[in-house]
Amino acid sequence: MALPLRRRLPVLPLLLLAAGGLRAAERSGSSSSAMEELATEKEAEESHRQDSVSLLTFILLLTLTILTIWLFKHRRVRFLHETGLAMIYGLIVGVILRYGTPSTSGRDKPISCSQEDRLFTTLLVNVSGKFFEYTLKGEISPGKIHNVEQNDMLRKVTFDPEVFFNILLPPIIFHAGYSLKKRHFFRNLGSILAYAFLGTAVSCFIIGNLMYGVVKLMKLVGQLSDKFYYTDCLLFGAIISATDPVTVLAIFNELHADVDLYALLFGESVLNDAVAIVLSSSIVAYQPTGENTHAFDAAAFFKSVGVFLGIFSGSFMMGAVTGVVTALVTKFTKLHCFPLLETALFFLMSWSTFLLAEACGFTGVVAVLFCGITQAHYTYNNLSVESRSRTKQLFEVLHFLAENFIFSYMGLALFTFQKHIFSPVFIIGAFIAIFLGRAAHIYPLSFLLNLGRRHKISWNFQHMMMFSGLRGAMAFALAIRDTATYSHQMMFSTTLLIVFFTVWIVGGGTTPMLSWLNIRVGVDPDQDPPPTNDSFQVLQGDGPDSERRNRTQQESAWLFRLWYSFDHNYLKPILTHSGPPLTTTLPSWCGLIARCLTSPQVYDNQEQLREEDSDFILNDGDLTVTYGDTTITANGSSGPHTATTSLDGRRTKSSSEEALERDLGAADHEVTSRGTRLVFPLEDNA
Amino acid sequence: MALPLRRRLPVLPLLLLAAGGLRAAERSGSSSSAMEELATEKEAEESHRQDSVSLLTFILLLTLTILTIWLFKHRRVRFLHETGLAMIYGLIVGVILRYGTPSTSGRDKPISCSQEDRLFTTLLVNVSGKFFEYTLKGEISPGKIHNVEQNDMLRKVTFDPEVFFNILLPPIIFHAGYSLKKRHFFRNLGSILAYAFLGTAVSCFIIGNLMYGVVKLMKLVGQLSDKFYYTDCLLFGAIISATDPVTVLAIFNELHADVDLYALLFGESVLNDAVAIVLSSSIVAYQPTGENTHAFDAAAFFKSVGVFLGIFSGSFMMGAVTGVVTALVTKFTKLHCFPLLETALFFLMSWSTFLLAEACGFTGVVAVLFCGITQAHYTYNNLSVESRSRTKQLFEVLHFLAENFIFSYMGLALFTFQKHIFSPVFIIGAFIAIFLGRAAHIYPLSFLLNLGRRHKISWNFQHMMMFSGLRGAMAFALAIRDTATYSHQMMFSTTLLIVFFTVWIVGGGTTPMLSWLNIRVGVDPDQDPPPTNDSFQVLQGDGPDSERRNRTQQESAWLFRLWYSFDHNYLKPILTHSGPPLTTTLPSWCGLIARCLTSPQVYDNQEQLREEDSDFILNDGDLTVTYGDTTITANGSSGPHTATTSLDGRRTKSSSEEALERDLGAADHEVTSRGTRLVFPLEDNA
Repeated sequence: MALPLRRRLPVLPLLLLAAGGLRAAERSGSSSSAMEELATEKEAEESHRQDSVSLLTFILLLTLTILTIWLFKHRRVRFLHETGLAMIYGLIVGVILRYGTPSTSGRDKPISCSQEDRLFTTLLVNVSGKFFEYTLKGEISPGKIHNVEQNDMLRKVTFDPEVFFNILLPPIIFHAGYSLKKRHFFRNLGSILAYAFLGTAVSCFIIGNLMYGVVKLMKLVGQLSDKFYYTDCLLFGAIISATDPVTVLAIFNELHADVDLYALLFGESVLNDAVAIVLSSSIVAYQPTGENTHAFDAAAFFKSVGVFLGIFSGSFMMGAVTGVVTALVTKFTKLHCFPLLETALFFLMSWSTFLLAEACGFTGVVAVLFCGITQAHYTYNNLSVESRSRTKQLFEVLHFLAENFIFSYMGLALFTFQKHIFSPVFIIGAFIAIFLGRAAHIYPLSFLLNLGRRHKISWNFQHMMMFSGLRGAMAFALAIRDTATYSHQMMFSTTLLIVFFTVWIVGGGTTPMLSWLNIRVGVDPDQDPPPTNDSFQVLQGDGPDSERRNRTQQESAWLFRLWYSFDHNYLKPILTHSGPPLTTTLPSWCGLIARCLTSPQVYDNQEQLREEDSDFILNDGDLTVTYGDTTITANGSSGPHTATTSLDGRRTKSSSEEALERDLGAADHEVTSRGTRLVFPLEDNA
Repeated sequence: MALPLRRRLPVLPLLLLAAGGLRAAERSGSSSSAMEELATEKEAEESHRQDSVSLLTFILLLTLTILTIWLFKHRRVRFLHETGLAMIYGLIVGVILRYGTPSTSGRDKPISCSQEDRLFTTLLVNVSGKFFEYTLKGEISPGKIHNVEQNDMLRKVTFDPEVFFNILLPPIIFHAGYSLKKRHFFRNLGSILAYAFLGTAVSCFIIGNLMYGVVKLMKLVGQLSDKFYYTDCLLFGAIISATDPVTVLAIFNELHADVDLYALLFGESVLNDAVAIVLSSSIVAYQPTGENTHAFDAAAFFKSVGVFLGIFSGSFMMGAVTGVVTALVTKFTKLHCFPLLETALFFLMSWSTFLLAEACGFTGVVAVLFCGITQAHYTYNNLSVESRSRTKQLFEVLHFLAENFIFSYMGLALFTFQKHIFSPVFIIGAFIAIFLGRAAHIYPLSFLLNLGRRHKISWNFQHMMMFSGLRGAMAFALAIRDTATYSHQMMFSTTLLIVFFTVWIVGGGTTPMLSWLNIRVGVDPDQDPPPTNDSFQVLQGDGPDSERRNRTQQESAWLFRLWYSFDHNYLKPILTHSGPPLTTTLPSWCGLIARCLTSPQVYDNQEQLREEDSDFILNDGDLTVTYGDTTITANGSSGPHTATTSLDGRRTKSSSEEALERDLGAADHEVTSRGTRLVFPLEDNA
């Protein structure tokens, strides 16, 4: 059970591409002291040089990728995305390194030094009178000892797996959270959550079980040479369930494809990364309990579920809390006069989320995602104009570099990774399993969601979502985390192939698929779809639609409404310079606090807010209509202004809005026409 | 002689703050396998947590610093600069860590494992049947073995010295190069080069010799308990000669102090960092030759000089070449349509300079400096508007974070570094030595330079330069690189104190000093000083000034003129979209190549250029006048248009300009009025 051990081996969050450099040079001279020292020095220098060369290789790869991307963008080539390109270049360099460099240098022969049964971090070795310090790197399974003795260059370009998880993923994930197009995301939040949580769990379970069948089959046929447990299969399911439609979304963005489909795909992929990470941790946590490991055990199962919920909510909290703290700091200081300080603070706080979560035993990557969302939702509004673009651009560049680096590395790893186990049966099984797994969550879930959704997820959208289920950086990072055992090596090799296949095929097929499925393109992503006949009917208050809404939908509508009103009336005014003044939303006995917390800008912003509101009302007809005839309870943190407003179907829109607002405003003073209206998430995130 | 060994121990360029994390957890369980594994896992987790906590400490420190900086800026407090502040916070946290945490955890007791006389990178240790991999960390002097056994938390916050050199310095230095205010820098280039090269060498030599006297004295008094060689003293001289007037310059910037003084101070500090690095490498390279190490040896001395020149010019070339390649790539692709790609490429290329230089055995930090200057001079002009601000901001943020991190760490190191050797005699001697060393290069050099300079360096400027010689990040990074021996530890402790003292005292005293020295403030840094009486006289062509110019000055003038004409006529048009078309500056038989290399924008830019030119002529009177009556030989890469133009004193300005230009233009076709004028570096670097 080596995963948790390796996973937590203290490769530092910040450590960038360190692994290659940490294998010190050998000193082989054993003659006179001076000669030895010279030789030693030369070899140390040589090793340092090789480190630089190996990093240069990657930089060259990325540079080449960038130039080719430009060429492709310039020529409007769409059959190959930049990530696919990075992989191809990686592959080529991998082939060169594998077959073009001498197979083994023999300069790093390890020796065995048997000792008593205590294990230490630091080892002092006495070599001809001199003491050298060694630090523990990790455990090696006895069968792999000969593997340490391998091609020097290949080893140099092999990074510590934790580099991916602790250094390259965080900027990617943070950027995903920070660049969320909030409006369409929140509008589809229910469906996105369903796809991300339920969908990923279903997919993981189905893939895991199918693969267990495949493994059984392999055992029967005699294709399996080592252990492969049920939990391994489930872990594979979790790893491979993290979808990453970066290619598809890039093309969507370029073609301005349907915004709701975009929101669904993007939201799902962002959240299901988080779900997949926590899921795989939970599955790993499941393993070591009791004596009958790797078999089903109810107690262990519930413990795993507990771990899942604990880690997920803990990480969520961490991310949200640091986001809120940043928002408060940026609101109550005049830091925005100094954009550099502001940007630095923003960067540090966002990064501290990761460390804080790791320090508390949660998952840093997940925390970073929610931190990104919180920062975008609150802090972003407090930043100066310059800092807004600075932070956006900073994380955009980091994201771009990290992502392309991972994909290059993937290409490279196919040839330079030394422990590949390619099993045709397993691979074919895996492809079938991921296909079935995705089908089994997209279509049934869409059916269920369509029962409650006003704006249906049409068949062509469903097919597109099915098609877009490609695997990327997250699956790779999860798979490479632990390649110590036979089963994990097979899973890693298979994951690599799946990533290659899906990125190339799906990436190339997106544009044809879009036209084949008749999905409209050329939509301004910040504009709403034009009201269809269907929604127009509802605006007229027609009956049949209202009847179709079931209880679940009403509840979720109620819940979201509650959250939005809470967010708009309390969180936004406390954390940002926007929203209605707290003096109007808080009960009167909180007057002093309200006045302290409300920023003076709010009063100036009111006029502007009103305009935003009306914009919202004009554009966002859909959402309002959907929940228009439900019972609304606006329930803030404290008592007096809870109200139940029943509305008829006819005047849904303005009446529901106005009633709610009048009610909320009434607590403090009468608001003149439409002042403190409930604002659903608008894209303040330009 | 451990420096080169440790210096090159392959801590990778990119590895960020890794050291803290690379000391793996101890695994102490020796009972049953399952129990042991659990204990192991727990400890690994604990260690990872501690790593996160230690990094969080630094982030908290930086956050605190940022907030206090804001407060200080907000209140216009100038007696303490942000770097001084960072040090104070670092000190406080250092005290807490030192005295507030349990003195030793006892969890990391190292063991000795005597073995045969070969030393290996990787060590496999067999502990109760399991194999663990250890990697070589470095040599430990036998006396320090007990030091390994130290406070856990203190060790966690101790970073590998190479982190400073390979990760934190490069962004600081690149930013310095990239943000160079070129116009004033080039105008004072001669003086800056003199201060940086001659000055640093003089200062290093004087400090080294004075310290050798101090060391001799200490030996006499019996204050020296271990060896302290002459080369160590010289190394100390090199380390402490790197000035870093970041505080002073920040205040200059804020107060808009005299631009020439700013250029002199900034240029000197930027270049002398590079000189100090290479100088210290050369001194280290001097050591191991022959049997009588640490005594003077002519052959070794010249070898060191050769090493100095080799490393310096090599690093310079590396930096310049990657800068030029980036310029060519950004010029000949339409990458500027995609700012993200452009920025990423710019970042990667700049970073690859560092790696390339390290891979070739040169000094990465120095290469990065010249790369920054080249990028600012050429590439910057090719970038899209968005990329310009992006790259500026990106490196500004990196620089800010890295610098404040180093200063926080310095504060921390005063208490957490475990091998301090504070020797009062040495410290007092060092303070006197750096004072004398600075005085001995500022005043004599200024005197010599004033012989040749048109715009004199006045006494108050000289005093200000003398006063601004504070030491900062570079001295610290050089000193912490090797703290293996007694002498180096004493040097490190002394350097720390010098940095503290100079940053606080000088930082706080800058504003009073400026007013005391009557140095004018409130000057727009992009504007030239108004023509003084003195220069006005020269515009009228008066005699006495012309006579004072000596041969050296004429040569340098001729040299710079040559460089500028070459830069303007060939490099700028080839590498950027500005400058005169190559078709006009290259001989006619190069027509095809010239047409290929000249970008179409150049022809459009001509009109604009002319305006810039006249701006230059109006503003930059000083330089033109200085070299106005020298014999100008414009000698391009190929033959025909070498001309000698003798000018009388009266019409210096326009006539020299026009003659040169007419001459250069004549090779291809006659240029209509003032088209391809020689442009001295204007600030195209807005």
